[in-house]
Amino acid sequence: MAHWLRYTHDGRGGFGRLDGDRIAVHTGDLFSDPAPTGETLALADVTLDLPCRPSKLIALWNNFHAAAEKQGLDRPENPLFFVKPPNTYRASGETVTVPDGVGRLLFEGELGIVIGRRGRDLTPEAAAEHIFGYTCVNDVTALEVLKADPSFVQWTRSKGFDGFGPFGPVIATGLTPDDLSVAVRVNGRERQRYPVADMIFKPHEIVALISRGITLEPGDLIACGTSNGAGPIPKGATVEVEIDGIGVLSNPFA
Amino acid sequence: MAHWLRYTHDGRGGFGRLDGDRIAVHTGDLFSDPAPTGETLALADVTLDLPCRPSKLIALWNNFHAAAEKQGLDRPENPLFFVKPPNTYRASGETVTVPDGVGRLLFEGELGIVIGRRGRDLTPEAAAEHIFGYTCVNDVTALEVLKADPSFVQWTRSKGFDGFGPFGPVIATGLTPDDLSVAVRVNGRERQRYPVADMIFKPHEIVALISRGITLEPGDLIACGTSNGAGPIPKGATVEVEIDGIGVLSNPFA
Repeated sequence: MAHWLRYTHDGRGGFGRLDGDRIAVHTGDLFSDPAPTGETLALADVTLDLPCRPSKLIALWNNFHAAAEKQGLDRPENPLFFVKPPNTYRASGETVTVPDGVGRLLFEGELGIVIGRRGRDLTPEAAAEHIFGYTCVNDVTALEVLKADPSFVQWTRSKGFDGFGPFGPVIATGLTPDDLSVAVRVNGRERQRYPVADMIFKPHEIVALISRGITLEPGDLIACGTSNGAGPIPKGATVEVEIDGIGVLSNPFA
Repeated sequence: MAHWLRYTHDGRGGFGRLDGDRIAVHTGDLFSDPAPTGETLALADVTLDLPCRPSKLIALWNNFHAAAEKQGLDRPENPLFFVKPPNTYRASGETVTVPDGVGRLLFEGELGIVIGRRGRDLTPEAAAEHIFGYTCVNDVTALEVLKADPSFVQWTRSKGFDGFGPFGPVIATGLTPDDLSVAVRVNGRERQRYPVADMIFKPHEIVALISRGITLEPGDLIACGTSNGAGPIPKGATVEVEIDGIGVLSNPFA
């Protein structure tokens, strides 16, 4: 088990592995050949960056039994998903400056799958090997934009504004997703908590099914969908998504 | 007016400006400081690459009066769009290897707007200044996937398979979009032709409206939607999207 992160230190970017409150600096490519340099940095001395740069952030809808039951939704045959473009990405600690005129915001705490190897048309067994690790995702949504047009549900626009896809703080390897739970706190008060084990499609099944005809690249991120308890983000609130074994993704909304 | 392209020559990538059947090789960044090296190459000696690498390819739905009328759709208040992820990108001349099991394919010939400058919350006048040029796009769709799930229209998946977003062959600058028409040929026979002037939202309006809360980056691509005449891609067909003043985007589907 390891926690990988990217950082900026004295104006220079780098990546490394967490060791208590220090970072063991590495060189090479995180997904193919990370090698320790021997240098360490204090976590307190760096600014966290995104732990990876996904070529695509795929986000699922309707992937939890409890939420599907509450909303009267059938179990889908395939993962149902949309894409959050790169302008949505924000690191943990970064402020999300909410654009004007987007109306009420919803947080959705989610488990994020980070792909480690290029692949397509994977079996579930092979897919498990292509998962590098996991991170926390806040799939932010502008509720009124989502259904503003009766002819076209605006998944992309309502979830695609600048800063609407924070993820991090790290990528954790060696976890067993079914043991995890996702919790969200707004201004320190817990507002959402659900077990990952309630997923309709498990992470390796998600990766296998999405990879049918769609090549997944190292660093690609798949947000596994949310369960009951997603709720409003008040103006000026700080939203934290915590997953045991990964850490806390924290973003102020200004 | 210029035609910009990227190429591979003797295993090395580069970019340049078309001058008849030769390429004036340039260095620097296409969008900020392209500078001629003095070297030229024969167009016949290079392989075309994507003319740019969009951080996002945004594609519109319901943006032509004629198509809206035929389908009984209202004029939308805002551009309605989805995102085609980078695994869909293919250069002109590249073969699209159709994934197994995706069913019938539809071509949609479209005008593509290439962004030249970073910007957000642009007025229509400012937006016009942020448009670098135009290219041809084939917004390929797996029809049966699109509406396979009654609870969720799968815009992203049906339009997001590997190779479903060819664009090129070049980026043309200095065009007046309202003068253009988009034509599609399948195996040499014209199957679609419509005037760009019939757009509901014009290119500078599209850029302005999408940029509300969404930062557009140099090289980002916006496909302006299609009109009547989008049709099937038979097995093994070659699909050409031609826009006068830009050129022909040609892709065999294997």
